Amino acid sequence: METKKFDVAIIGGGIIGSSIAYYLAKEKRKVAIFEAQQMGGKSTSAAAGMLGAHSEYKEFMQLYPFARSSQLLYKELYEEIKELTTIDFEKKNGGLLKLAYSEEEKRDLESILSLSSVEWLDCTEAREKVPQLAADIVGAAYLKEDVHITPLIACNGLSKGAKLLGAEIYEYTRVLRVEKNGMGYVLKTSQGTFLTDNVVVASGVWSNYFFQQLGLPHEIIPVKGECVAALNDGAPLHYSVFHDQFYIVPRNNNELVIGATKKWNDWTEDPSLDGLQEVIKKAKRMIPEVGKMKWKRAWAGLRPQTYDGYPFIGEHPEMKGLYFATGHQRNGILLAPATGKMIRDLMIGSPVEKRWVDAFKVERHDFMHREELSN
Amino acid sequence: METKKFDVAIIGGGIIGSSIAYYLAKEKRKVAIFEAQQMGGKSTSAAAGMLGAHSEYKEFMQLYPFARSSQLLYKELYEEIKELTTIDFEKKNGGLLKLAYSEEEKRDLESILSLSSVEWLDCTEAREKVPQLAADIVGAAYLKEDVHITPLIACNGLSKGAKLLGAEIYEYTRVLRVEKNGMGYVLKTSQGTFLTDNVVVASGVWSNYFFQQLGLPHEIIPVKGECVAALNDGAPLHYSVFHDQFYIVPRNNNELVIGATKKWNDWTEDPSLDGLQEVIKKAKRMIPEVGKMKWKRAWAGLRPQTYDGYPFIGEHPEMKGLYFATGHQRNGILLAPATGKMIRDLMIGSPVEKRWVDAFKVERHDFMHREELSN
Amino acid sequence: METKKFDVAIIGGGIIGSSIAYYLAKEKRKVAIFEAQQMGGKSTSAAAGMLGAHSEYKEFMQLYPFARSSQLLYKELYEEIKELTTIDFEKKNGGLLKLAYSEEEKRDLESILSLSSVEWLDCTEAREKVPQLAADIVGAAYLKEDVHITPLIACNGLSKGAKLLGAEIYEYTRVLRVEKNGMGYVLKTSQGTFLTDNVVVASGVWSNYFFQQLGLPHEIIPVKGECVAALNDGAPLHYSVFHDQFYIVPRNNNELVIGATKKWNDWTEDPSLDGLQEVIKKAKRMIPEVGKMKWKRAWAGLRPQTYDGYPFIGEHPEMKGLYFATGHQRNGILLAPATGKMIRDLMIGSPVEKRWVDAFKVERHDFMHREELSN
Amino acid sequence: METKKFDVAIIGGGIIGSSIAYYLAKEKRKVAIFEAQQMGGKSTSAAAGMLGAHSEYKEFMQLYPFARSSQLLYKELYEEIKELTTIDFEKKNGGLLKLAYSEEEKRDLESILSLSSVEWLDCTEAREKVPQLAADIVGAAYLKEDVHITPLIACNGLSKGAKLLGAEIYEYTRVLRVEKNGMGYVLKTSQGTFLTDNVVVASGVWSNYFFQQLGLPHEIIPVKGECVAALNDGAPLHYSVFHDQFYIVPRNNNELVIGATKKWNDWTEDPSLDGLQEVIKKAKRMIPEVGKMKWKRAWAGLRPQTYDGYPFIGEHPEMKGLYFATGHQRNGILLAPATGKMIRDLMIGSPVEKRWVDAFKVERHDFMHREELSN
Repeated sequence: METKKFDVAIIGGGIIGSSIAYYLAKEKRKVAIFEAQQMGGKSTSAAAGMLGAHSEYKEFMQLYPFARSSQLLYKELYEEIKELTTIDFEKKNGGLLKLAYSEEEKRDLESILSLSSVEWLDCTEAREKVPQLAADIVGAAYLKEDVHITPLIACNGLSKGAKLLGAEIYEYTRVLRVEKNGMGYVLKTSQGTFLTDNVVVASGVWSNYFFQQLGLPHEIIPVKGECVAALNDGAPLHYSVFHDQFYIVPRNNNELVIGATKKWNDWTEDPSLDGLQEVIKKAKRMIPEVGKMKWKRAWAGLRPQTYDGYPFIGEHPEMKGLYFATGHQRNGILLAPATGKMIRDLMIGSPVEKRWVDAFKVERHDFMHREELSN
Repeated sequence: METKKFDVAIIGGGIIGSSIAYYLAKEKRKVAIFEAQQMGGKSTSAAAGMLGAHSEYKEFMQLYPFARSSQLLYKELYEEIKELTTIDFEKKNGGLLKLAYSEEEKRDLESILSLSSVEWLDCTEAREKVPQLAADIVGAAYLKEDVHITPLIACNGLSKGAKLLGAEIYEYTRVLRVEKNGMGYVLKTSQGTFLTDNVVVASGVWSNYFFQQLGLPHEIIPVKGECVAALNDGAPLHYSVFHDQFYIVPRNNNELVIGATKKWNDWTEDPSLDGLQEVIKKAKRMIPEVGKMKWKRAWAGLRPQTYDGYPFIGEHPEMKGLYFATGHQRNGILLAPATGKMIRDLMIGSPVEKRWVDAFKVERHDFMHREELSN
Repeated sequence: METKKFDVAIIGGGIIGSSIAYYLAKEKRKVAIFEAQQMGGKSTSAAAGMLGAHSEYKEFMQLYPFARSSQLLYKELYEEIKELTTIDFEKKNGGLLKLAYSEEEKRDLESILSLSSVEWLDCTEAREKVPQLAADIVGAAYLKEDVHITPLIACNGLSKGAKLLGAEIYEYTRVLRVEKNGMGYVLKTSQGTFLTDNVVVASGVWSNYFFQQLGLPHEIIPVKGECVAALNDGAPLHYSVFHDQFYIVPRNNNELVIGATKKWNDWTEDPSLDGLQEVIKKAKRMIPEVGKMKWKRAWAGLRPQTYDGYPFIGEHPEMKGLYFATGHQRNGILLAPATGKMIRDLMIGSPVEKRWVDAFKVERHDFMHREELSN
Repeated sequence: METKKFDVAIIGGGIIGSSIAYYLAKEKRKVAIFEAQQMGGKSTSAAAGMLGAHSEYKEFMQLYPFARSSQLLYKELYEEIKELTTIDFEKKNGGLLKLAYSEEEKRDLESILSLSSVEWLDCTEAREKVPQLAADIVGAAYLKEDVHITPLIACNGLSKGAKLLGAEIYEYTRVLRVEKNGMGYVLKTSQGTFLTDNVVVASGVWSNYFFQQLGLPHEIIPVKGECVAALNDGAPLHYSVFHDQFYIVPRNNNELVIGATKKWNDWTEDPSLDGLQEVIKKAKRMIPEVGKMKWKRAWAGLRPQTYDGYPFIGEHPEMKGLYFATGHQRNGILLAPATGKMIRDLMIGSPVEKRWVDAFKVERHDFMHREELSN
């Protein structure tokens, strides 16, 4: 039997890998995704899906513009994928309220309030939008563009779109080894050997194995997040709310997704009782009536954290055709379109903004204006 | 403590009761829903959600026009509820293909093919729309208006809409007894006593208890349906497909909902192994590759069947202000808007088409043109 | 078709109804159980299964001896049912530690410490038995006889035992009405009419409907309890632990069952976020490392509470052959055997201890030595 | 931080790895288990747990005696682990009936019928033991020693036992690489580096990665099995039944575990609709009333198959201190104790039966009396 050969082999079938596959398949590249478990089954399905370009960043040089460009890409992707696959990302408009409980917390919001798409609401105005909010807030930054989607469905839409454009998807297929082979690569997998011109490692926290195997000292740290879902039998929540890294996001099926803890270097993928207790406490701080709601589910996921808070998006410093796209921390859903597009552009030779190339490149050492590791 | 009093008390929080509540709340009636378990938790959540006005009926005098009017009402309800509550019914356009495997089956489709919104596709045309279809079909009736929604979400949307307009919702509240009380009624429930001017019994198969308690000989027969969901990891399915009472309906989250058996007078609410075996077999007859797909879930629900296949929508023959809205058989989701509107119109004195009043009234005995009990 | 006729019709297929059925079927009575949902699916399956004759009672005149006799009956039932059905109740020996965090709490334990089967352990001794215990306990009462079982399995065993001895089980069958019929009764159910000489109402909190329908003013109040299960990946827990109405009970499959809140007059059957937060907090107070454990599930159940804390076990004051067996509060599992035996003895005319007849009879008004409503 | 060092590092936390850990921990070896996901979460939890020494083998030179010795070891392990950890393997006595539907099938049973512990039952006798059996059987071989246990619980018991004796358990820890290091080995894992004198690869089908990395051409083929569980609301099943590689096994909680398909080289870990249809059909062939039972769950697991049907239990031909224990096909539960004991004996230098050493050694090529690959 002849060995299959691809233009691009993507390792990891989460939303990052699926987005890359979609952008490359649109360029008629022969793409394959290799996923060790089920598509989107790990960090992607654990995410809440806020497209929080504004809520997530205090730094406006590299990451915010990249995030904002990704947020805007979602608008066209949403329509494209729906047309192509009938899959609807379940985009919920309305945006997000970032709460302040003190003048100090209000001051912390000043940098994002300077953006034209962000508006300050005092307590009364905020509670007009979300009457369920705790009465003791000072106010909230209203980030009207920070809408949200349902991550696993978006991942499905992107991978199914890629598939319809010719990509192949290998689930339950573990890549054991990537080896140089002439101008290209050999992939040894649990289901046989494949040839490919290019490789993209998009395996989230599990990318460490490939950094190591491919001779790089890089390391991704897991930051475990624990979440719960509650059934909202009260008035609908028209906006997401956010405070102190915790959030409440309304889903279309009446559920509120509430998260998330941050446990550094914790590789376990189950929620702990401590974690759930903390999540519930924080949610009630934002919307007290959440405590009365019906419990539905709990889960956990691992966010891939880099040493400086920037993702790795770029080529291996020495091995041409071998790319990394990982380390998106808590913003993998938001950054998936811009990451897919950037990898595509790097691969096909289209221009990419230099500040992003520099900020996200694998071989970077340090930066003048490194973002404070606030998230 | 003073006893609470309502204009209308609705017994049953499925999609029928929720629709009635919504239409009445819009008219500023003070409405309460009493649901013995969770809102939408029984037959509503078990349904596939096809709005099959055309696929379901061979009779065009009463039920088809009623069903068609209900189908059309969904278009405006969809927008209204989304605006009011942010809840999106997850309407999937595309419509439905009703398959024929022989000339005889094709002839059975003739009556619906005479409708302007229905089109005949030969085998090739049908497989252009749905390449996954079995190759041995003769063709299919394409019912482009028979789109589908996600039933539990539609039920949530309607009840939440009603609530925002003032309705009260009592979950886990069993109505034990309805008693005449002057011009109105007393409801004795597991959670206390309530007064109301009007009562609507909308409890599906569980309406029998109230027929009996209120002196009527009517009986609803359960027709149990068993379903499975599969994960579609192949090409998306852009249409629902239907054959011999079985169907495959694509959901937005990549799942295919497949159903359903018909077990007369079976009150158990769990799927049986026999049932699932039959469902899988029928699904593979329509789309062979379904057999390779991943199993997700199985469930069952009870359809409320009347002796003549028509629902009971109307007033008790002797007790003014006491209404029934039950017996919708396998079309409760489709008929919910028209039922809600009809009960509203009967109650507020707006005109209702006489043929529907006559066909669905509780005290009917027989009909000249009774639909054959094909479903 | 002839109407079926039974010697005894039991309404309610939880552990109380199943135990009654078993004891009566052993006496060759022709028994039927009518269960509105699934056997054991409500309060029985929500229970932790501690046979806490000693941990639960401060009163030693009526309830403790009754509970203790029931605890002893489990020893023979366990063997009998295993022999007959192969079902093993999963009895875990070891018993229970009732913790004291202060001298005052220790004093509260004095009454049970006077019992010969109960032993005081100081902090060191208690932590020899359960090294995971919080270090700041003063000590614990060690109730070595208060072992536990898995409630749903015990219920299954009893009902399957009854069935093998001739009982009939009607699941998903709601009893709508009990009517006097000559010397016996007619049961109108959702699945037809049945005749019976005797009726036993054993429907937990849902018995209210029958009290009302049968002309009695009695009322059962639900006391909702919320629970969680954690996966114990640490050292095994050889004992149950208990403090301030909360408990941690080890199951055979490595899970710890942790409960339970007490919410008066709450009829909802889902756990709330508030409830789970409280359960976790209380569990960590007893065994701090529980916080690190993996979350598994959450659920809730309704305990049937009477006005005076005693169950109703006895005949209707005016209707011969009509019995009640409900109101066991949080001790339904423990009291099931003694309740089954007492109903059997009342029905077949065997002697029953007078103090129990008097304490539990339906028509009682008040008692000289009423137990303080501490539970 | 100093690198941790163990006497033995076991890769894989299923029942094979857990048994090895237990036997070595009893010998005071410093043991660690590295499990990529949760302990017992893959093939172990998918297994039915029949200890089918007699039902599984037609060959009596190597595997049957090994299997039989393992079956006998369970008797002592059962008591030991219960004493040490309180965990009860849920052993169900009764044994197994291997059905014959024709004289030919009866002849196929002749070899096991020659064993003293196996008895032939004609149709009447078989149906006395299991009245639910299909009426058209010719008879059954009654294998009274082939009892069954609950696999995940046995795995928990063994690993918890090992832990109490000093073993360390690393869940969610993927071993990326095993490297020679002086007289011992270095393990590079997703959670850091460890040193060890000995390594045991016990990763079922996922052992392939280590064969490859360690320079061996061996390959394990997955044979996927799909299963369903039904709720037995009829008479209890006192025996397991077996026919044509399919089985029905009663669990203590009233469930029947029914399996299993055999799909060669299928790495997906979800059940397919085809698979479930086949399982249900085969189960009904044995016990027709299974079709009426309530559906509970479906799942799948991957059996590790070697080229000749024998497991690999032994040392790497060139790397001292590096062992394999994998390839147990559908008998991993049954063979776990004997495998654990054999690895222990090889490692500590105790005698092991030569025929087993030869039959299971990693570097074997072929055998004179190779078992026919019937399973």
